[in-house]
Amino acid sequence: MRNLKLTLAYDGTEFHGWQFQPDARTIQGELETALARLFNHEVTVYGSGRTDAGVHALGQVANVQTTRTMDVHSVLKGSNVLLPLEIRVLSVEDVDESFHARFSSRSKTYEYHIWRHHIVSPFICRYVYKYPYDMDTAAVDEAGAQLVGTHDFTSFSAANAPVDDRVRTVFDIHWRRNHDEWIFSIKGSGFLHRMVRTIVGTLLYVGQGKLHPSVIPAILEAKDRGAAGPSAPAEGLHLVQVEY
Amino acid sequence: MRNLKLTLAYDGTEFHGWQFQPDARTIQGELETALARLFNHEVTVYGSGRTDAGVHALGQVANVQTTRTMDVHSVLKGSNVLLPLEIRVLSVEDVDESFHARFSSRSKTYEYHIWRHHIVSPFICRYVYKYPYDMDTAAVDEAGAQLVGTHDFTSFSAANAPVDDRVRTVFDIHWRRNHDEWIFSIKGSGFLHRMVRTIVGTLLYVGQGKLHPSVIPAILEAKDRGAAGPSAPAEGLHLVQVEY
Repeated sequence: MRNLKLTLAYDGTEFHGWQFQPDARTIQGELETALARLFNHEVTVYGSGRTDAGVHALGQVANVQTTRTMDVHSVLKGSNVLLPLEIRVLSVEDVDESFHARFSSRSKTYEYHIWRHHIVSPFICRYVYKYPYDMDTAAVDEAGAQLVGTHDFTSFSAANAPVDDRVRTVFDIHWRRNHDEWIFSIKGSGFLHRMVRTIVGTLLYVGQGKLHPSVIPAILEAKDRGAAGPSAPAEGLHLVQVEY
Repeated sequence: MRNLKLTLAYDGTEFHGWQFQPDARTIQGELETALARLFNHEVTVYGSGRTDAGVHALGQVANVQTTRTMDVHSVLKGSNVLLPLEIRVLSVEDVDESFHARFSSRSKTYEYHIWRHHIVSPFICRYVYKYPYDMDTAAVDEAGAQLVGTHDFTSFSAANAPVDDRVRTVFDIHWRRNHDEWIFSIKGSGFLHRMVRTIVGTLLYVGQGKLHPSVIPAILEAKDRGAAGPSAPAEGLHLVQVEY
């Protein structure tokens, strides 16, 4: 069976997240419907991970198997004709049958976009979290640096996350601050459910002085979701790249 | 009566244009509803011009009269709380009672955004016209240059435009071409209904070789909408600035 790797961009605003749901519009559901029409057989689309409702992607990766022999450019063109404009297939390539978008991934990069002015342009309001409040950026950076490395991130994941091993490695955290647009970037071996949003929400708490950066090790140590700050809202989060 | 000048940005995608309609969602209608609530009296909002359904604005200007004495910053904040996120008031200032957004304007600048690749990012697909076809840019520039100046633009305006005087002055036309994003910019004393979109559509016809740039004077001379090319679609058009 032929195995195809798809690179995808989507505006998650109007979708109930990645994962297929029988009665809701989802990214996986839209992809499976479009590709089943294109290939004329049922398909399962495997994503690198399940983005939540409202989360966006610039470089989500998925794989799908097909019996069809059409060339990859025809798959690219055909799928984009059949998909809604909020989901675009950016590239298609034939890959080894052992390739799996989720299990083969080595790392992922997410960005979180914050808008630092009380007026948000209508052209970006779906893609940023408005946060015009004063922020102690030195404290934010000090707190972020302590999250880099290999840690048990239980305190930063949704309490109901259905996984046993909550140890992950964060390779890099940095901010790009450009006038009113502040972009948080994080690269890691993998992320627990809500982990990026909870890290951002906690860093914003630190920035407001509600938590001192020195308590980050104790928050990790607690292994308790209640120890960290709130989760930042979905609209600011973008899955930028998946590395293999 | 106090007269306020408002500078506005909006994403026109989900609106039936600027002009109030009793049974449709319009920019003017939303503004009048929000400001009537804020001021606690009925208002009429006068725009610099009526943008069509689907057309966007980065710097539309309007004026409104009120009996209220609240400071301009409170008007800015309060109106943005009451308006949908697709419409933002960028600034509010007290102006002389003689100021009228439409009649006081000296010139306007529009941009038209074209996307030159067959895949359009979901984050900009509402704001550009996808046009990946080959284009003779020298011919486009030669045709555009002949539209600069004072001309009767009847051939470039909607056939039903309810005005007698169709002479307008175009001060400047230029393109910014940056990879796949090509932006057409036009500044003029004023624009007839559909004039910018018909100029762009005609220039794209020239770019495709369907019209030769040398026929522009004859198209102007014809004073017949049928002489020019088709109108480019609304989604690529942005009202950038109104000069007073």
